[in-house]
Amino acid sequence: MSAYFFHFAVYYRGFFNCLTTDGKVFDDQKHVWLQARQVWTYMRLYNEFERFKKPEILDAAKRGAVFLQKYAKNPSTYKCYLALTRDGKPVRMQKTVFSECFYMMAMSELARGTGEQSFKDEAIKMMDRIVHWLRVDNTDINLPDYAGIPPTSSLAEPMMLLCLIQQLKDMDPASLDKYGDLPQWCIQQILMHIQRDGKYILENVSPEGKELPGSHGRVMTPGHSIEAGWFLLQYAIQQNDESLKNTAIQKFMINPFEYGWDNEYGGIFYFMDVDGFPPVQLESDMKLWWVHNESMISFLMAYKETGDQAHLDRFAKIFDYSYSHFVDEENGEWYGYLNRQGPVSLSFKGGPWKGCFHVPRCLLMCEKMLKQLCNK
Amino acid sequence: MSAYFFHFAVYYRGFFNCLTTDGKVFDDQKHVWLQARQVWTYMRLYNEFERFKKPEILDAAKRGAVFLQKYAKNPSTYKCYLALTRDGKPVRMQKTVFSECFYMMAMSELARGTGEQSFKDEAIKMMDRIVHWLRVDNTDINLPDYAGIPPTSSLAEPMMLLCLIQQLKDMDPASLDKYGDLPQWCIQQILMHIQRDGKYILENVSPEGKELPGSHGRVMTPGHSIEAGWFLLQYAIQQNDESLKNTAIQKFMINPFEYGWDNEYGGIFYFMDVDGFPPVQLESDMKLWWVHNESMISFLMAYKETGDQAHLDRFAKIFDYSYSHFVDEENGEWYGYLNRQGPVSLSFKGGPWKGCFHVPRCLLMCEKMLKQLCNK
Repeated sequence: MSAYFFHFAVYYRGFFNCLTTDGKVFDDQKHVWLQARQVWTYMRLYNEFERFKKPEILDAAKRGAVFLQKYAKNPSTYKCYLALTRDGKPVRMQKTVFSECFYMMAMSELARGTGEQSFKDEAIKMMDRIVHWLRVDNTDINLPDYAGIPPTSSLAEPMMLLCLIQQLKDMDPASLDKYGDLPQWCIQQILMHIQRDGKYILENVSPEGKELPGSHGRVMTPGHSIEAGWFLLQYAIQQNDESLKNTAIQKFMINPFEYGWDNEYGGIFYFMDVDGFPPVQLESDMKLWWVHNESMISFLMAYKETGDQAHLDRFAKIFDYSYSHFVDEENGEWYGYLNRQGPVSLSFKGGPWKGCFHVPRCLLMCEKMLKQLCNK
Repeated sequence: MSAYFFHFAVYYRGFFNCLTTDGKVFDDQKHVWLQARQVWTYMRLYNEFERFKKPEILDAAKRGAVFLQKYAKNPSTYKCYLALTRDGKPVRMQKTVFSECFYMMAMSELARGTGEQSFKDEAIKMMDRIVHWLRVDNTDINLPDYAGIPPTSSLAEPMMLLCLIQQLKDMDPASLDKYGDLPQWCIQQILMHIQRDGKYILENVSPEGKELPGSHGRVMTPGHSIEAGWFLLQYAIQQNDESLKNTAIQKFMINPFEYGWDNEYGGIFYFMDVDGFPPVQLESDMKLWWVHNESMISFLMAYKETGDQAHLDRFAKIFDYSYSHFVDEENGEWYGYLNRQGPVSLSFKGGPWKGCFHVPRCLLMCEKMLKQLCNK
């Protein structure tokens, strides 16, 4: 794992995250999602794998955190930027909470590994802000409120919040207490996206859980649905909730995998339209690395939980596609973006949206699960 | 031409512009660029082709114009939206001037065809606003002014403005007088994008015409450069400016065509990086219809002007690629988006960015030029 992994550990302050096929920096902008995810990944490895419990990994994560704390957020509102210059000047802000969520994950995983109260305080302060934006007042994160935009509940927000709930549990289960019914609220918000007699997961629904009109209402992101599947399954296992386990596996994993798999060329599509109309996102038929990472985690977790061989077969199908298409045997790491037919479309290993996160998270989770399966 | 063309003339108020392969409406949002361009196209055909001088075409254009005038703009600022609901409610606004430019083109071409003063007044009022935003005060159209964003001059704005100058000339040459040195300013702004010893056209440069750092500074859009080529050549012919003619043809047409052509699979790439690094736009290696429409116009115009057979060969190369890849013989019209290797990626005929404009403008301009060449 480390062979290609430290390819990414190029830093000055923060990490360069735009890297060519063989690891050269081709742009020195620093993307906040990726900066924060890289800190999280280093610390997750440091915290959970003996062979990564090294001072240089801790040191790199801390340097990344210093950069984030200093430059990624508006110190008074805690709203974070999306991209920064090499020396930390803001370039772009998104009207979403995702930079903020990854910031929280980074601080929390650092708190877990170092025991330092300041990181824990920072993680909880950001968590408070995120919950405030999503449940109380979304003014800071809302796009202009034009009359023609239907009120929309996206899958991304509650699933991200469920991920943060797990992160708080990993750091300090007691820290979750003050958020009350937040886990149940997240689950309910996620399950609203099951539509059409349970057959499809729609990315956008109304706040009441009804289908929305047009392409916006019909769009599906199978990789996203399958990723939500393992977030839900993990939660259901902890709660010992058999019904939620079944829902997670059937509705969020199996169904999206079946309609999302490209029977002609292999791999999972990025965007689809539930009625089979052409999706309007230009990158719809591309095969993206993270979709396949998250699907590997999902089906291995489903197999580990149920023992059903069909899940292992699905895992193997995705693994075979991934290792014959995404993995760069010569230079290490995974390509991120393939054309539908299979050839690499964009050859970079790190770009504005691809950093040190989905590949290592997939590998570390699969390694743990496979070891547990072998030791059974 | 009309066979597939009136496929698009589906309207209630304004036009549906999201149409499947065989012309079914798959989304009823109305995209302002496309609404305005469709009005312009109808009127250009009505004004310049005897066989399209039909009351139903005029009527359709006027209905589109009514919708635009009523819903597309903020009546006090003249800032336009990007997308509207079927019944005209705003969905999205862009911090650019392009909706506004197409609005101006629509009103101006209507004024030209009807002689109605109200359309002329509306066109000039919008032109005034656009010139104000681009040359005097860009507050209304500017993204947040973050410290990390380098001041940037994009190719799109001055080339669009040069297109509007031509539009004013077509409507009423005297209407151009009040804009003073605007044409010269546009030309100077466009020529700043010639970089690296004249070999490449960069999409973004500094306001002083220097190269900008990173992917943002290195990005090239060959189709855009080639389109700017015929805007420049048309202007140079009118001005009888031999030097500008040569620059338009060599720097904006031939060079971008040579570095933009995909020698492996044919067609012209969408985005490229001047240093050969991977571009960061996910759709970079796709082949887009409008790139090929604009290139056909450019090389036919260059051939007509110079008589150099090499331009006709380039035209034929693009024509052959287009008619074997983009054109849908069964249902009419062109597909818009192909994968690098050639297969259709998104099967719609009309979508949020593809409407009734580039294909018919290409066909009408090429028809006129070919007739003039045959009559020589």
